[in-house]
Amino acid sequence: MPRWKPDARQRLVVAALRLFAEQGYDNTTVAEIAERAGLTRSTFHRHFTDKREILSAGQTTLSRLLVEGIADAPADSTPMGAVAAGLERASGEMTSFNRELSPLLHAAIEANEELQERNALKSIGMAAAMVGALRQRGVPEATAQVAAELGVLAFKLGFTRWADPARDDAPGELATLTLSALDELLAAAQRLD
Amino acid sequence: MPRWKPDARQRLVVAALRLFAEQGYDNTTVAEIAERAGLTRSTFHRHFTDKREILSAGQTTLSRLLVEGIADAPADSTPMGAVAAGLERASGEMTSFNRELSPLLHAAIEANEELQERNALKSIGMAAAMVGALRQRGVPEATAQVAAELGVLAFKLGFTRWADPARDDAPGELATLTLSALDELLAAAQRLD
Repeated sequence: MPRWKPDARQRLVVAALRLFAEQGYDNTTVAEIAERAGLTRSTFHRHFTDKREILSAGQTTLSRLLVEGIADAPADSTPMGAVAAGLERASGEMTSFNRELSPLLHAAIEANEELQERNALKSIGMAAAMVGALRQRGVPEATAQVAAELGVLAFKLGFTRWADPARDDAPGELATLTLSALDELLAAAQRLD
Repeated sequence: MPRWKPDARQRLVVAALRLFAEQGYDNTTVAEIAERAGLTRSTFHRHFTDKREILSAGQTTLSRLLVEGIADAPADSTPMGAVAAGLERASGEMTSFNRELSPLLHAAIEANEELQERNALKSIGMAAAMVGALRQRGVPEATAQVAAELGVLAFKLGFTRWADPARDDAPGELATLTLSALDELLAAAQRLD
């Protein structure tokens, strides 16, 4: 097998997103996804429970990385410093595979209401994970909620810029884009009156 | 019919939430909801398409009120002033029925994952509605997103305090609680560094 060949899991994700965009999420079966990826159904089920999990697996990882980054921030970090550490940890794990997948994922989401809901819930899950991690550090509730919402908005804005095909940032630069988005959003918050 | 008797729509909502809490959302049928409310299935369907709509109908109204309040704010309002106007409009429409329903709604949501998702999506819908209304006023994107998130957090916090059975604020006081939550959250945002 050539070294550049994507692994089975990645092939399943790409095949699924292509099918979702082409024929709709509801109309796509696990059998079709496996076939498009050149794999068997039982290989599919070694990686994912069902087609829905293809989209939620990334979310679980993302929330875990945010929480770890916040928990590992130095004890004297401010709440925003801790959020920045979480974003940096999560950004650092995103690869060019995540970036290349982004237009496909976007097309699949645009075409299906259930996927739009899943995507919206992803933001809620990220925010809840960050609030929990900040509360663990003793950050007061209101501050934790505001800091977490700014963190979610920053990650989404940074990721959107990074995934823009008109840009050519290296994968490692997602963290830079996300942290500068966090600075922008914090500045916007502090100008509010 | 005594004047205090709730209307058919309210009776259906109360019956549905009681059944969701008692036996689960998934196990509850439209026929059971109508029966518990002492109404027919065809009356149910004059008010709601299906049981899911019982929970989403309030959300549509809420988003509309937020948008109207923001749109009608004076032209020289700041973004936060416009958000406050939206919250005030929405709060003003909540009645003691909304408050009394809150523990039932909470119990039904706690018991069912789909309802937890619906509830999370409600926040997303409120935020999106407010971002759209702020953008219409020419508020820049980042500012609109931050202001809208603060607005959602403020409404949730204000509503939670108002619905707390240990409190005895009059229905009209939801606006006061929500606007003071908005002040708290803005102060928390401005202390971030």
